[in-house]
Amino acid sequence: MEQHHQYGTESDADTAMSPGLISPRDVEAVPNPRDKNGLHTPLLQRKKTLLPDANYSVEQHQAMIGANVSPIESLDYELIENELFRQDWRSRTKHEILEYVFLKWTFVFLLGLLTGLVGFGINMAVENIAGAKFLATTKSMSASGFMPAFLLYAGSNVGLILVSSLLCVYISPAAAGSGIPEVKAYLNGVDTPNIFSLKTLFVKVFGCICTVSGGLIVGKEGPLVHIGSCIASLIGQGGSRKYHLTWRWLRYFKNDRDRRDLVTCGSAAGVAAAFRAPVGGVLFALEEVTSWWRGPLLWRAFFTTAVVAVVLRTGMAWCKGGSCGLFGEGGLIIFDVEGVKSEYGLLELFPVVVLGIIGGVLGSAFNHLNSKIVLFFGAFLNKRWRSAKVWQACLIALLTASISFGLPWFAECRPCPEHKIGQYPIGAECPTHGRAANFKGFHCPDGTYNDLANLFFNTNDDATRNLFSTGTPGEFRKSSLLIYLGASYFLAVITYGIAVPSGLFVPSILCGATYGRLVGMLMTPIAGDDRLDEGVYALLGAASFLGGSMRMTVSLCIILLELTNNLRMLPLIMLVLLVSKTVGDSFNDAVFDIHVQLKGFPFLDAHPEPFMRHLTAREAIKYTPVTFNAVERVGTVVDVLTTTRHNAFPVLEENGAVLCGLVLRYHIMVLLEKRAFLDHSDDSYIEKKPALTSSDFAKPGSGKGMRIEYLHVTPEEREKYLDLRFVANTSPYTVVETMSLAKAFTLFRQLGLRHLCVIPKKSRTERSPIVGLLTRHDFMPGYLHEQHPLLR
Amino acid sequence: MEQHHQYGTESDADTAMSPGLISPRDVEAVPNPRDKNGLHTPLLQRKKTLLPDANYSVEQHQAMIGANVSPIESLDYELIENELFRQDWRSRTKHEILEYVFLKWTFVFLLGLLTGLVGFGINMAVENIAGAKFLATTKSMSASGFMPAFLLYAGSNVGLILVSSLLCVYISPAAAGSGIPEVKAYLNGVDTPNIFSLKTLFVKVFGCICTVSGGLIVGKEGPLVHIGSCIASLIGQGGSRKYHLTWRWLRYFKNDRDRRDLVTCGSAAGVAAAFRAPVGGVLFALEEVTSWWRGPLLWRAFFTTAVVAVVLRTGMAWCKGGSCGLFGEGGLIIFDVEGVKSEYGLLELFPVVVLGIIGGVLGSAFNHLNSKIVLFFGAFLNKRWRSAKVWQACLIALLTASISFGLPWFAECRPCPEHKIGQYPIGAECPTHGRAANFKGFHCPDGTYNDLANLFFNTNDDATRNLFSTGTPGEFRKSSLLIYLGASYFLAVITYGIAVPSGLFVPSILCGATYGRLVGMLMTPIAGDDRLDEGVYALLGAASFLGGSMRMTVSLCIILLELTNNLRMLPLIMLVLLVSKTVGDSFNDAVFDIHVQLKGFPFLDAHPEPFMRHLTAREAIKYTPVTFNAVERVGTVVDVLTTTRHNAFPVLEENGAVLCGLVLRYHIMVLLEKRAFLDHSDDSYIEKKPALTSSDFAKPGSGKGMRIEYLHVTPEEREKYLDLRFVANTSPYTVVETMSLAKAFTLFRQLGLRHLCVIPKKSRTERSPIVGLLTRHDFMPGYLHEQHPLLR
Repeated sequence: MEQHHQYGTESDADTAMSPGLISPRDVEAVPNPRDKNGLHTPLLQRKKTLLPDANYSVEQHQAMIGANVSPIESLDYELIENELFRQDWRSRTKHEILEYVFLKWTFVFLLGLLTGLVGFGINMAVENIAGAKFLATTKSMSASGFMPAFLLYAGSNVGLILVSSLLCVYISPAAAGSGIPEVKAYLNGVDTPNIFSLKTLFVKVFGCICTVSGGLIVGKEGPLVHIGSCIASLIGQGGSRKYHLTWRWLRYFKNDRDRRDLVTCGSAAGVAAAFRAPVGGVLFALEEVTSWWRGPLLWRAFFTTAVVAVVLRTGMAWCKGGSCGLFGEGGLIIFDVEGVKSEYGLLELFPVVVLGIIGGVLGSAFNHLNSKIVLFFGAFLNKRWRSAKVWQACLIALLTASISFGLPWFAECRPCPEHKIGQYPIGAECPTHGRAANFKGFHCPDGTYNDLANLFFNTNDDATRNLFSTGTPGEFRKSSLLIYLGASYFLAVITYGIAVPSGLFVPSILCGATYGRLVGMLMTPIAGDDRLDEGVYALLGAASFLGGSMRMTVSLCIILLELTNNLRMLPLIMLVLLVSKTVGDSFNDAVFDIHVQLKGFPFLDAHPEPFMRHLTAREAIKYTPVTFNAVERVGTVVDVLTTTRHNAFPVLEENGAVLCGLVLRYHIMVLLEKRAFLDHSDDSYIEKKPALTSSDFAKPGSGKGMRIEYLHVTPEEREKYLDLRFVANTSPYTVVETMSLAKAFTLFRQLGLRHLCVIPKKSRTERSPIVGLLTRHDFMPGYLHEQHPLLR
Repeated sequence: MEQHHQYGTESDADTAMSPGLISPRDVEAVPNPRDKNGLHTPLLQRKKTLLPDANYSVEQHQAMIGANVSPIESLDYELIENELFRQDWRSRTKHEILEYVFLKWTFVFLLGLLTGLVGFGINMAVENIAGAKFLATTKSMSASGFMPAFLLYAGSNVGLILVSSLLCVYISPAAAGSGIPEVKAYLNGVDTPNIFSLKTLFVKVFGCICTVSGGLIVGKEGPLVHIGSCIASLIGQGGSRKYHLTWRWLRYFKNDRDRRDLVTCGSAAGVAAAFRAPVGGVLFALEEVTSWWRGPLLWRAFFTTAVVAVVLRTGMAWCKGGSCGLFGEGGLIIFDVEGVKSEYGLLELFPVVVLGIIGGVLGSAFNHLNSKIVLFFGAFLNKRWRSAKVWQACLIALLTASISFGLPWFAECRPCPEHKIGQYPIGAECPTHGRAANFKGFHCPDGTYNDLANLFFNTNDDATRNLFSTGTPGEFRKSSLLIYLGASYFLAVITYGIAVPSGLFVPSILCGATYGRLVGMLMTPIAGDDRLDEGVYALLGAASFLGGSMRMTVSLCIILLELTNNLRMLPLIMLVLLVSKTVGDSFNDAVFDIHVQLKGFPFLDAHPEPFMRHLTAREAIKYTPVTFNAVERVGTVVDVLTTTRHNAFPVLEENGAVLCGLVLRYHIMVLLEKRAFLDHSDDSYIEKKPALTSSDFAKPGSGKGMRIEYLHVTPEEREKYLDLRFVANTSPYTVVETMSLAKAFTLFRQLGLRHLCVIPKKSRTERSPIVGLLTRHDFMPGYLHEQHPLLR
């Protein structure tokens, strides 16, 4: 359920103003006559994308998947009704239905189990690699001084990022980035090859481990969402076809609907594994990722994330000995701010609102700057050699390492607090030279600590923990927080979008928590010691940045609660999210929506754009459809399939007077490949007791269709006939040509169609019973504005 | 988003088995040939309802609203497209759009404010009335002994219930019951007069106060959901039309879509006010109440509940002095179980699963028994005089009073615990004779307390607090818990459904917490003192009963967390909900779904029933539609409107050859009432520059349509003409007659239609361009099974 607030509200306003505020046009589109300026220039500029061809082309069915441009295809959720599939339905036994239900639950159980294990493994690996890195650097620092330590630190970071970006660029470009835009697009009905392949999964897992332990300002939540979806898709396909790891049980799952459901559960499981937030995961999938949501799915996603939670908890119990590093501390709560003073007066609402405004401004600025930088580098790098992307990643890694090692080096050492305060168990020690701690020694002498190193010279998780730590007032200087805020914001802006797996949650939480804590410190002279804890301010700051950048509401609320375990903060978190989302929405779109659009996905919003009310369905049709007769010559069919790229063809009966149905390209391909030919044009294939069953027509996994070029048809076979009635969808959804495009869009989007038939208004006098077909690309604002430039 | 798990899974299985498992029939419906037994008996029995006429009739458009049978009507979410409404769209200014958006947010703000205040007021009133009652009874008990105290107690209880049931039976029957089924039906598209009237609101508020303080085993959450929806609907209508409290701003909100959105937010606000659970409220509305959900709605509902939370919090801060009784203690957390040991071993998973199973069994048994009792009393009382319902309510009140006063009287007194344990602030005192306390003195001497009185002689909220109280092991005897479980279960079963406002959450929580605590006590000898606290077991028990009866998942989880403030319990709560929902689903439907069906609402499930694949759309059509010509004689129109009850009429052009569109009854009524007549049949109304604008056709509030009987048309006017093209929806959604009913259902349900046009397959040779209209009632399984008894 996406949240295009700007569009949402607008089109909201439009659809809702009165029972029927729609204006179909029977004639050509004319702009609003009162608008004098809009007459000769296109009124809505097409948005830029990362695709190499800057002009939006009708025939351009491709998008930026991860780091590379790939072809895309639409998914189809329409039910096909005809003799063939009816027979199959009749022949299904109770046992088969039971088997299906059993498999469905087994699959989500497996999904939860595997996602939980992978999430656990990633955490473990990151903790151990990063831990070893910090230990070695600290040792080298005390033994040999700045330069060797820096070289060791920067070298290991750059090395890790090099591995990650090499994997991404040369092995599986689809694994680059967070993957959330790709998953969102898939669940909106846009399929791409390799996006959920086994190779992508492996690269994503190992790349994510390297990237996060390599010290970049990135998180592992976005990649985990992609990983969860990959696992789901692979389970749904019964393993990887390429590596011959398939199961025969799959016959029940060879359709887009079941795969969609599994992938939705997978994205929920990914968030659950990343934040140890089972309910937050379900809500994230619901609010941010999916486009269609069904009641039973909530229940299945809930089950999946429950399994993830149990797996993680078991893993943590197993880790109790300490062998897993900090992972496992605090059980399922990662950043605990429980037990702090939860009373707050009306005076404290003011800084909370201020935080919301800061979050809205900084968050939307982040979206804007990041999209500009991604576009700039995209235009620059896509035209050049592939290794440029590797260089870019390594340079950013080097920059990050220099900043995070260099800046603390020049910071002043601060004396340790006299009383060991803080509920955080490790905070009692000062200074520490180990891994995560509240009071990092870094290069400081005994009895003093380096507050910048607390933030910079730490994993992102531990830096967040330090920012959230309660009962440690005055741990950071204001200047340190300011420096860290600037550096992390800058690094986050330039990092998201490079060719490594990277998530956006952790950078947002880091930036937000920093200025949140700063605002909390500034409140001390005003509110005195009776104010909220600095850790709570950090939490609210994190909420504000997330709200300002990602624009989610309920799911962020629950994820933050599950991260920090303080339900009494709920009203404050809600307030801060409301303010920051409102402020952010007044500037630009949510970050994932911006990236979906940058990557050029033909994404269908929940609502039609207002200008679509001024067009009729007929006006959006690109060309007269290529039709077939009910029984068509094989040669004709092969020629049409070879010369066009259409995926569906209307089938006409009775000399073209009656629309028999709609036939899909891959169903014709199966007929051709199985040689299901007739000798005469007046035969009927169904009367011949065909050997083909509906399972022969089951849809293969993503991007694995047959291609007409590889099919050999002999000249004798070309003279035979194909009975297309056998596979045609005899009752496709139709709309009348005078319907406004907005209304047709609603039907298309709500039912998840791939093709929508447009029928003539005056059927008796029209030449053909079908005017044309509408597909996803015909509803894209970019295309429509090119066709009707004067439309507003 | 409703959760019919049983149906959901089935139809799930069906829709998903393969790309097209649908079987449209062109001929008559025939049962599965392999099923020998099903040939001569209807295979699916129609379910019983509370409606007096036991036979499901096609023409029966009525349902049980609250305590009385009322007529019902369908809502219409389709956009109407024609010249008239197009003009209106063009004439709208930017300022009007801004005004609309501003109003939309003002309305939800007002909604949150009012619902919060009403919820606060109800809490205050209940606390004070019940408090005064208990104090007076305790005083009388110590002064005059058992009998006078009992008379005082029972008298006040029966008096309160008498007021409540009199209000419900004689003033506003629509206010009886929880209201959740009615709200659910409204949001599914079934409108009824008075369900959201000002009268209903007042009766619901005062009835709810009386019922809850009257000591019945009922809650105030169901009524609060209804109250929130009422407030929403009244705001959306701009006040009560009946009492002339309307605003002129309303013109933007005169359509079903905006009202639906507001009512959804209202139901979320109601739950938020009842449980002080803002996020839980949003999720409850999403998971249980709504049928259609849109992204922007999540965001608006979230805002509404945030306002409710702020109002409640401010109220509580204002109450700090103690003037509001116990209300306000614990801030937004009602039953706090924070701070208890949250570690649990694998051994403890066993009792948790057992709790889930118990909850599933008891919950589904509750659904079954309650529906039987409601049906029994319904059949018995609906035929008799209205006061029978008042008698029934008073008798149950007397029974409840006798049990809750009598049973503790015979209970043995227990010595107070030596050490004042328990974090619960009032638990330190033992025994207490005031209002709520952990250790009630009742009639016991000093130094002892009465553990049955802790439960029975208390408000339901305080009894729950006692059951959830942590750090108080051994407070209750096992026998006391068993007695209380039996009594409260029995009372809950017979109480829900009588003619007073009553909610189901509190009874479920009470029963569940009781056996939960019992299981916790039984675990002591097994797990020793290292086990989970008894209060935590009580929480898990409550979760299991709620899951077993209401079958929600995510929303229950969040509501329970927000009630009890212990996030570490999340995995256990998820586990217990999963088990209890699974067990419950294997027996029957969720309780609210059962009541929706009992009340006879034509509710459209999210998925078509499997048997609908064996019917075509044509087979479900009841009769040839009554059609009009594009320009029709006034006399003909009036006669048709008078003699039929149809709400939509196809309009034909060009001698009946072309379907011009669909015209709604109330649009024709407006034309007739405004005398928008033509003198000649070849005139065109639109060319006459009509004075009518689209706001003249705005839909009035629920159940307030004009009636043809009250319209006077002179004989001269009868000879004039009406231009129906002016108001007809020129591009209605259509399906082809051979489409399976299941596929047509999907379209109908997803787009929220009221009428679906069925067009002929062979349009050129058919007599009429329209075969018929499908409405909500045509998709009802009961009707379809009557028409096609052999279908399975």
